[in-house]
Amino acid sequence: MPMIFDRIAIIGVGLIGASIARAARERGAANTICLYDANPVVRERARELGLGEVFDDAEKAVADADLVVLAVPVGVMGAAAAACARGLKIGAIVTDVGSVKRAVVDAVGAVLPTSVYFVPGHPLAGTEHSGPDAGFASLFQNRWQILTPLPNQGAAYPAAVDQLEAFWRALGANVERMDAERHDVVLAVTSHLPHLIAFNIVAMAEDLENVTEGEVVKYSASGFRDFTRIAASDPTMWRDVFLNNREAVLEVLGRFSEDLAALQRAIRWGEGDTLYDLFDRARRMRREVIDAGQDSPAPNWGRDETST
Amino acid sequence: MPMIFDRIAIIGVGLIGASIARAARERGAANTICLYDANPVVRERARELGLGEVFDDAEKAVADADLVVLAVPVGVMGAAAAACARGLKIGAIVTDVGSVKRAVVDAVGAVLPTSVYFVPGHPLAGTEHSGPDAGFASLFQNRWQILTPLPNQGAAYPAAVDQLEAFWRALGANVERMDAERHDVVLAVTSHLPHLIAFNIVAMAEDLENVTEGEVVKYSASGFRDFTRIAASDPTMWRDVFLNNREAVLEVLGRFSEDLAALQRAIRWGEGDTLYDLFDRARRMRREVIDAGQDSPAPNWGRDETST
Repeated sequence: MPMIFDRIAIIGVGLIGASIARAARERGAANTICLYDANPVVRERARELGLGEVFDDAEKAVADADLVVLAVPVGVMGAAAAACARGLKIGAIVTDVGSVKRAVVDAVGAVLPTSVYFVPGHPLAGTEHSGPDAGFASLFQNRWQILTPLPNQGAAYPAAVDQLEAFWRALGANVERMDAERHDVVLAVTSHLPHLIAFNIVAMAEDLENVTEGEVVKYSASGFRDFTRIAASDPTMWRDVFLNNREAVLEVLGRFSEDLAALQRAIRWGEGDTLYDLFDRARRMRREVIDAGQDSPAPNWGRDETST
Repeated sequence: MPMIFDRIAIIGVGLIGASIARAARERGAANTICLYDANPVVRERARELGLGEVFDDAEKAVADADLVVLAVPVGVMGAAAAACARGLKIGAIVTDVGSVKRAVVDAVGAVLPTSVYFVPGHPLAGTEHSGPDAGFASLFQNRWQILTPLPNQGAAYPAAVDQLEAFWRALGANVERMDAERHDVVLAVTSHLPHLIAFNIVAMAEDLENVTEGEVVKYSASGFRDFTRIAASDPTMWRDVFLNNREAVLEVLGRFSEDLAALQRAIRWGEGDTLYDLFDRARRMRREVIDAGQDSPAPNWGRDETST
């Protein structure tokens, strides 16, 4: 694998930041990996894990870095950029990994110097685990990395975007480009709404658990457990996603609720054909997801082999 | 493993029926396995798969059977029982695998002769695949089998329930007993509502797919794909579940919609603390599910290893 950047700096060492560090080292995509996290406990852990050169100061961490990756929750992305802005070298590429793009473009764009290239990005990869220990080198393998390059930039900007794309490809990702607005709508459907629904049903079940004496957990393998996985994702990250992609999320949520009301009515009135047709359509969608290589076709994802 | 029944008959050779046949043979829980399916194509396939002795007539299939398992969708459970009723031997144990119990107890109870022991049951096991080819012997391993014995039966009834319990344990299942009403409420929360929500979001996304040009499928790994798995379950089976457990499903669905409306409001008004608290509670529930041995703790269930 080719070396893409001599020196990279990662700000924020959670699941994503730690995985970038591990992947960049394993794939040889960077010579030197510098790390900073606002939390001293996380910095200490990053040192113990040997993820790279850990700094106690954001400005020092990014000094001389050719690429700076902001890997913090969406709500503090602007603050993270501001904390390292004065240390950025001229011509550095700055990117982020936020799950929302419009709000991040606005917040980060407002504090970065014009002497750097800001190329927003979002790796569609993750697990239900958080923190530096959760990171692993193959997290981005065959997953999508979406870049949302800014419009109306200077002549050298396209080359910076290409170099960042090469970096993500070196980490094993497939790279797509789209504008920030489209990203936010597509992700509202494919990611933000599913997580919101999962959080909602799991919290509701927890309320009911007082009534059912542990039966929800006990019998969760009958469907419920599938929702608990994505509902286990980092609460801070997700709070920020919903606060920062409010419009698109409320739009698809409204649509979801409308459809659910129709389904409720079909159950109440015993409209079997309506139910069947809808369930049959949903089943076809699963086939498309499998055919697109976006999920494992193994029964129950093969998890029953790993869990017992 | 001990032989529990000399001769068993399975009516309906789908995922569950075929899995019972394979498990009973592998574990030695029955000497002879007889099979019947109303669909001649399925019967032919059952023969090709060597699942047991396949009959073209339900009454002949159950003749002399010590245990008869009705493994058909809830909506045709009564009809399946009626089709074999006259062939049942005196003292035979009859059970079913329906996901709803009250409606099945009523429908099946109405057509069975009083000379047999009817012990309703529900294995909490399955995959997103259907049909005889989807069956496998370890499907019930470490999964729950719920029995809902009838009240006010004769003196020999408890022994029949015990024998059926021994059969399911021989197949690897953990067995619990509860009454039909409680079963229907608990399953409405743990299984029926999650499936309904999954069907709804996947069908909604399919509608949107016309707008998004394939992007929902393309980027489904960011959360959406988790829902597609359970939404791929057999549409006939699920239509029957919702039509036959209407009251309990509408009750929990109402609760879900209420909570979702509150969440929607929190997003609209930017109430970050409300969102965080709810997400944090949902995360704790995941921990309980893992601790209860009801799901795999591997990141992404380890499926990324199997899919790539």
